[in-house]
Amino acid sequence: MKELAKQARHAATQFLRKEESIKEKMFESLVVHLENNMDEIISENQKDLKLAKENNLEAAMIDRLELSKDRILQMMDGVREISKQKQVVGSFFEEQKNAAGLMVKKQRIPLGVILMIFESRPNVVVDCAALAIKSSNAIILKGGKEAKHSNEILGKIISQAISPFTDKNLVQVLSSDNRKNVEELLKLDQYIDVVIPRGGEGLIQYVSDTAKMPVIAHYKGLCHMYIDEAADLEKALNLVVNAKTQRPGVCNAIETLLVHKSVLKDFAPKLVQKLKDKNTELRVDEEFKSAANDKNLKLANSEDWDTEYLANILSIRSVENMDHAIEHIARHGSKHSEAIVTEDAVNSEKFLRCVDASCVMINASTRFNDGGQLGLGAELGISTTKIHAYGPMGAEQMTSSRFVVEGEGHIRS
Amino acid sequence: MKELAKQARHAATQFLRKEESIKEKMFESLVVHLENNMDEIISENQKDLKLAKENNLEAAMIDRLELSKDRILQMMDGVREISKQKQVVGSFFEEQKNAAGLMVKKQRIPLGVILMIFESRPNVVVDCAALAIKSSNAIILKGGKEAKHSNEILGKIISQAISPFTDKNLVQVLSSDNRKNVEELLKLDQYIDVVIPRGGEGLIQYVSDTAKMPVIAHYKGLCHMYIDEAADLEKALNLVVNAKTQRPGVCNAIETLLVHKSVLKDFAPKLVQKLKDKNTELRVDEEFKSAANDKNLKLANSEDWDTEYLANILSIRSVENMDHAIEHIARHGSKHSEAIVTEDAVNSEKFLRCVDASCVMINASTRFNDGGQLGLGAELGISTTKIHAYGPMGAEQMTSSRFVVEGEGHIRS
Repeated sequence: MKELAKQARHAATQFLRKEESIKEKMFESLVVHLENNMDEIISENQKDLKLAKENNLEAAMIDRLELSKDRILQMMDGVREISKQKQVVGSFFEEQKNAAGLMVKKQRIPLGVILMIFESRPNVVVDCAALAIKSSNAIILKGGKEAKHSNEILGKIISQAISPFTDKNLVQVLSSDNRKNVEELLKLDQYIDVVIPRGGEGLIQYVSDTAKMPVIAHYKGLCHMYIDEAADLEKALNLVVNAKTQRPGVCNAIETLLVHKSVLKDFAPKLVQKLKDKNTELRVDEEFKSAANDKNLKLANSEDWDTEYLANILSIRSVENMDHAIEHIARHGSKHSEAIVTEDAVNSEKFLRCVDASCVMINASTRFNDGGQLGLGAELGISTTKIHAYGPMGAEQMTSSRFVVEGEGHIRS
Repeated sequence: MKELAKQARHAATQFLRKEESIKEKMFESLVVHLENNMDEIISENQKDLKLAKENNLEAAMIDRLELSKDRILQMMDGVREISKQKQVVGSFFEEQKNAAGLMVKKQRIPLGVILMIFESRPNVVVDCAALAIKSSNAIILKGGKEAKHSNEILGKIISQAISPFTDKNLVQVLSSDNRKNVEELLKLDQYIDVVIPRGGEGLIQYVSDTAKMPVIAHYKGLCHMYIDEAADLEKALNLVVNAKTQRPGVCNAIETLLVHKSVLKDFAPKLVQKLKDKNTELRVDEEFKSAANDKNLKLANSEDWDTEYLANILSIRSVENMDHAIEHIARHGSKHSEAIVTEDAVNSEKFLRCVDASCVMINASTRFNDGGQLGLGAELGISTTKIHAYGPMGAEQMTSSRFVVEGEGHIRS
């Protein structure tokens, strides 16, 4: 592992010396290689899907795992889109002349070597490789064993695509299942600048406990929507349905709905009806059940407030007031996406001030917390760590900046 | 310790609800309290100085430790200056309307709770407390035992000064020497968002190995100046003298000089003369010694290249070419400040591309890598970690940003 990390560092250093224009050629080559190897990708992916079904993986996991022709075309589009994004490293900004007459400016620079550990979703391999190239970082990608065959073939294709242009170790895909290897990598802070774990609680905890380098966690999305007493209930109905059911298996879908008790009576029966039409399973508290006047509603237990279902299930709690909602979110939220539905600007301002999340929505679906939707383009994931980048991480968030000072023999007095 | 960290988190949350204008009152109060307690600060500081002398601490350490009346006045000025800086949290930026017609903007937010572990320099307590208040963070300050009395009295004064306005646990000074306490704090990632160790290798290594939360290291400054073959040697002489001798005990002074062999013969004798006038101790390689034609020059050993003297000592090495200098810096530098002296733009551009440091200087003294000199104002220290902030960390670098999305019932299709 030490050799692998060293090679990544070396590839990153070498890549700094290349012209920016080489990246476009690398992206073109990557798209061509993906296109030419489509059948092989699909057949390798089928092996993973077969094993997943044999192992009775959840439907959401299997959905994330699949690489259909459409998804491969999407990956290719993703690479093209990243290729077209404006240059993110090397450029200067915030130029100023300081008091001593020195020219002071900042320059955007790559982070160096990024270790990314992720679960499922093999398309992450291609997205992250392209983002790493764009931001001039080396990247080591460690996927889950459930996507072993898919990740391996994608890693091989990326190597072939980039090796005519630069040291192929700029992008390395680790497919070994050996936890010892990961542990060793997490200790190599002299070669790896940052580790980005993207997944559930077990993974994030393990990496935070083990890593010597900084960790930018991409944790689960336990997202809430709060229906305020001043909510427009028509909007609220549509927003809940969209935030829960438009794609239930993703991190920016909501898991828990908080409803102000003063609107319960009006809102609950309509909501139950709407969500029945979408086959959403509900787990509610006593107050909601009674307001909905539906004896068949299942009651939530305390575990529900801490569960990211990644499925078409919604827990619902009635709250006394906004403070109660804010408190619930502080206790159970994962700092991912939180939404309020209200027509009262004072209330939304208070919610904004008191809720800590990478993206706070006012009268909008949590499904918008996504690099593409927020104008960043393709993303590595959604950071739930406040250090360095909070929210979607695109190519620019994979960079740092340094100071450059130009003088004519200036000394400090 | 858990209780202390919890209190910090609570204080940070409470402080979010205060008006921005309260900060000015807190800074005024802090200045008044420092002024009124000047004698007590000096007498407590004397206890530390007495112990330091008894324990034969190095002169540079004792210099850093001292709180004279002048230095207290400087601390007060520092607080006033921070008070006047523009607001750093709460403000919105990068507003845009996305494709779905949503208003998307970013908002600057505090990091939350910062744990700062530092050595010597008690004035850090006041600077960092003021920066934490400015950036709406809670801060836990753990100083070295050599400044125990000084840190304690400053902590007490800060508490008194801020408690009429907010929860005094917003700024907590830990003066216990118990390493177990620090270890416990470093595990409390649910309450502490980031740890900033500022000091030597032992401290940085210990914190990186132990902490569960992200670490922004403020490591030593092992800074170099490279005299290129195309250097203006008059500028070079002045720059070396300034970068080494203007204040040798600080992190942005140079420790090692790298001289292109083609200018050695001209440069070495003049430099030796200049530095003799400044009583600088030299440790040089054979080539430099022979070019300087001075038999009394002491030879450097391999340890010198890795030593931050923090004293009026300079090691000097002759290099074959710029690649050799770049390689030396990559091996021995601490990513703090690196300088090139050259009149050749191609050479300075190459140096810039290949050298990794928080601040790269072209024909300027390394002594300019400082928040005040680079236009940031007061600073927490100089980050040598590329994640989050690289270089001087002022109030703005103690913040993060999140997305805020405002819709009118917008759903994702």
